[in-house]
Amino acid sequence: MRIALAQLNPTIAALSDNVAKVKDAIAKAARQKANLVIFSELALSGYPPKDLLLYESFIKKERELLTEEILPLTLLGPAVIIGSSHLDQHKLYNAALLLEHGLVKSVHRKTLLPNYDVFDEARYFKRSSKNFTVDLNSIPTAITVCEDIWNDQGYETNPLYAINPLADLFAQGARLLINISASPYHLGKLKMREELLSYLARKYKTAVIYVNQAGGNDELIFDGSSLVFNNQGELLHRCPSFAEDLMLFESETLFCPGKELCPPGIDDISTVCQALTLGLRDYVKKTGFSKVVLGLSGGIDSAVVAALAVEALGAENVLGLLMPSPYSSEHSIDDALTLAENLGISSRIIKIEEPFKTFVNLLNENREALLDLAEENLQARIRGNIVMHTSNREGYLALATGNKSELAVGYCTLYGDMAGGLAVIADLPKTMVYELAKYLNTLYGSAIIPQRTIEKPPSAELRPGQKDEDSLPPYALLDPILQLYIEENRSGPEIINRGFDKTLVEKVIYMVDRAEFKRRQAAPGLRVTTRAFGSGRRMPIARSFVE
Amino acid sequence: MRIALAQLNPTIAALSDNVAKVKDAIAKAARQKANLVIFSELALSGYPPKDLLLYESFIKKERELLTEEILPLTLLGPAVIIGSSHLDQHKLYNAALLLEHGLVKSVHRKTLLPNYDVFDEARYFKRSSKNFTVDLNSIPTAITVCEDIWNDQGYETNPLYAINPLADLFAQGARLLINISASPYHLGKLKMREELLSYLARKYKTAVIYVNQAGGNDELIFDGSSLVFNNQGELLHRCPSFAEDLMLFESETLFCPGKELCPPGIDDISTVCQALTLGLRDYVKKTGFSKVVLGLSGGIDSAVVAALAVEALGAENVLGLLMPSPYSSEHSIDDALTLAENLGISSRIIKIEEPFKTFVNLLNENREALLDLAEENLQARIRGNIVMHTSNREGYLALATGNKSELAVGYCTLYGDMAGGLAVIADLPKTMVYELAKYLNTLYGSAIIPQRTIEKPPSAELRPGQKDEDSLPPYALLDPILQLYIEENRSGPEIINRGFDKTLVEKVIYMVDRAEFKRRQAAPGLRVTTRAFGSGRRMPIARSFVE
Repeated sequence: MRIALAQLNPTIAALSDNVAKVKDAIAKAARQKANLVIFSELALSGYPPKDLLLYESFIKKERELLTEEILPLTLLGPAVIIGSSHLDQHKLYNAALLLEHGLVKSVHRKTLLPNYDVFDEARYFKRSSKNFTVDLNSIPTAITVCEDIWNDQGYETNPLYAINPLADLFAQGARLLINISASPYHLGKLKMREELLSYLARKYKTAVIYVNQAGGNDELIFDGSSLVFNNQGELLHRCPSFAEDLMLFESETLFCPGKELCPPGIDDISTVCQALTLGLRDYVKKTGFSKVVLGLSGGIDSAVVAALAVEALGAENVLGLLMPSPYSSEHSIDDALTLAENLGISSRIIKIEEPFKTFVNLLNENREALLDLAEENLQARIRGNIVMHTSNREGYLALATGNKSELAVGYCTLYGDMAGGLAVIADLPKTMVYELAKYLNTLYGSAIIPQRTIEKPPSAELRPGQKDEDSLPPYALLDPILQLYIEENRSGPEIINRGFDKTLVEKVIYMVDRAEFKRRQAAPGLRVTTRAFGSGRRMPIARSFVE
Repeated sequence: MRIALAQLNPTIAALSDNVAKVKDAIAKAARQKANLVIFSELALSGYPPKDLLLYESFIKKERELLTEEILPLTLLGPAVIIGSSHLDQHKLYNAALLLEHGLVKSVHRKTLLPNYDVFDEARYFKRSSKNFTVDLNSIPTAITVCEDIWNDQGYETNPLYAINPLADLFAQGARLLINISASPYHLGKLKMREELLSYLARKYKTAVIYVNQAGGNDELIFDGSSLVFNNQGELLHRCPSFAEDLMLFESETLFCPGKELCPPGIDDISTVCQALTLGLRDYVKKTGFSKVVLGLSGGIDSAVVAALAVEALGAENVLGLLMPSPYSSEHSIDDALTLAENLGISSRIIKIEEPFKTFVNLLNENREALLDLAEENLQARIRGNIVMHTSNREGYLALATGNKSELAVGYCTLYGDMAGGLAVIADLPKTMVYELAKYLNTLYGSAIIPQRTIEKPPSAELRPGQKDEDSLPPYALLDPILQLYIEENRSGPEIINRGFDKTLVEKVIYMVDRAEFKRRQAAPGLRVTTRAFGSGRRMPIARSFVE
């Protein structure tokens, strides 16, 4: 049996477009004599469709397209396994459908519904209460959806769910495990997946086919990286990461020792770079934009975002605005101009001194700038106004350039530097931003991000001589504390026990908690860590900070 | 047996303060010879604690306070029923604890975990698999948590869950139903609760004691309105709505015909007014502020928000900023000044002409204003800057004044009029804003909101002669369409079938879908309808709008 993995990049709710992509993949696979084409989870709606799933009309339309457009293709063409919502007796399931000879041969409902981190599946779906195998070309096969393979005792030391669908399925004699997924990227995820799948193959003496969605949808970046393991847990095939793919192979190879094995996947700052590039490109395209604008400060954050935007959209689609204030240092403008030149992007210099003066005249009795926090924010907001004006008038999507460390402690201005449609590096701790800057320079083979931008002490330049470290601990100290508090849900005392200074830890936690009101109004940020702000971390604003 | 209902207003995460409140209520009840004091759901952490529940340290601290501070009081004092998280074998439950004679007599875990609308309980809790009654003063009693009473077949025509814990409990012979809740307000909710509880009392021939949380926590407003029904379904007692209360009664009255019954509750625009007032007051106080600033345009939205702020915080804590542009009509300034005078609040006039001109000089080659959409937004953002500057410098919390109709169709400026810490009327359709304005004038016994503000056609006044109805359908037509699309999840064709114009419906839906990026960055809005934007409606931004 020749099997095709169709790793596609759907746009959420673009049912007709997504169906067209699916049909196209089936046609291509058929031309290459495939007997079976496998698509990812919720392939027609795209994942995650969120509250669109609460619209009956949406579910109905999805089913109609499946029945009228996809099913007929299997009459003479290859069989299809595809993820779709499935309504049965007023209950909605997240299912994998096996379509064969123009019929729905079987429906495999998802048993384990992730409802943590960014996932809300219990909001929409009921869980399956039954798992069964089907024969594919006489191979007893377990067809599963995403989470269903992630709760295996032995691999998970503290299983999240009481049930393990795999135990059931392999007790029924499955020899092939097919899993269709929409598994979002975070740093380390590729390795986790490969380890798990190889483990399952070896434990159950089963071959494994894993088909994942590709593409960015809002904050989430799906890396694809679909995988095929033989029944000895050897990695036979890996689809490209961060791209669409149609990959074919012979099922016979699943049950023999591998001839040419794939090397283990790479998952380091280079994949973060690819992830952000894809996430940025897809957000821009899927919101109907083609070009982006951002403020260039001469600092590292905006430099990295500009470089990623060029990677994603091409230099001709990126506009940098240099918006110096009277407190900007000369080198900031030089560094920003050098960056723009290195990247080949357009740039404009728009000084904010005049609007700032006008506001000061209007708001301060003696017409003298005070340079208090209000005026620091005001400068940032004037820049925000200019960026948004350019966006509104000229049709650029505005990119926010703040990093995760700043967003965590609130070292950023709401409606100021936080303004924008997408916060590209909002999930990158500052120390990772440096790492990415260095990687980008390696990638380009030259210092496209000026060395001085990388080396100078970070500063918001909103008052004379200001440095980040006047208000914040050094990032090399701050980031590990944030990691423990935000990604690992450790408390103050637990973090102090790891050897961090008590006063510092308490100050950092207080800052993080107090800044929740800013994060609630932040632009969506591309997720690359195990816990990003946004739907992955849902915190009250009005609360006590004392405990 | 004398029973006390303790309807308290906790601050989220203020564990020590909340425990002090609980202890105080127990002491007061004890002085009045109560034998049992009943508190609401998650009374120590406040509801909803959200992702604080993911911190082990938080759960541990809650249990410590319960064991060390509350439990000892029951050694000689009244028994206590209180809502708390409950960790057992690494699984977290949402439970009602019965504390008696210094011991935890029984733990009643929540069976039905709401995970729709604003609720995420499946994110945190496991469900109970067992329900049992306990004897309270020889009365077999079902102690339940919130959602557990809301799935009764017969009342719910389409039950959400397969299980009905009440069937179990009454099969065991319960004669008294105690339900501890954190049930947020929406218009119509009070009536729903009273109908349900009376129905349950009659169906199961049971008395019912219902204790609800009071107070605002971020978007959610808990109205209290705790209730007592006798076993004939007659309403014996109702605690005040939108306030704390400690109410005592004799258990004997639960099993006799009622002598003095409560009239059915009122739930109309007056409760919306009380809800918003409480929600506003609590948000301000619980975020550590005492005073608020808002822009006064002379229009109805800002007038209503100002009046609510005065109700909530007193006139001395409300500052109105009049920020006329060259396109503001004379009557706008007059109406805003009249309003400020009527309300007795301070106001300042800050003309935005100069900053606007400066931006125009900076951004337009020929230095002439174009009055395109970018410049309309720019004017709104200059106002946003001024409001935020006042907030940042003088410690006012900024209130956003947009209504739900605007927010729905995106007739508002991100970082402009949308700027602020709290969006007070963000869940009120424009037609309800008018209703509330009229009600406020009735409440005050005079036209504190100037009649002209109520009568003139709404306008953003960002270009000469602009009216809302130039861009939008009349609100009387728009609001019912929005209601069907947003609150009832009806599709375009379904709405058109109800008799609305096809072109209009399609335009409205397109506008709503396209404005998701604005709503994602909106300030938290107080919820008063069955479906508010924010955590109650989770929509993708990057998506297709064609289908």
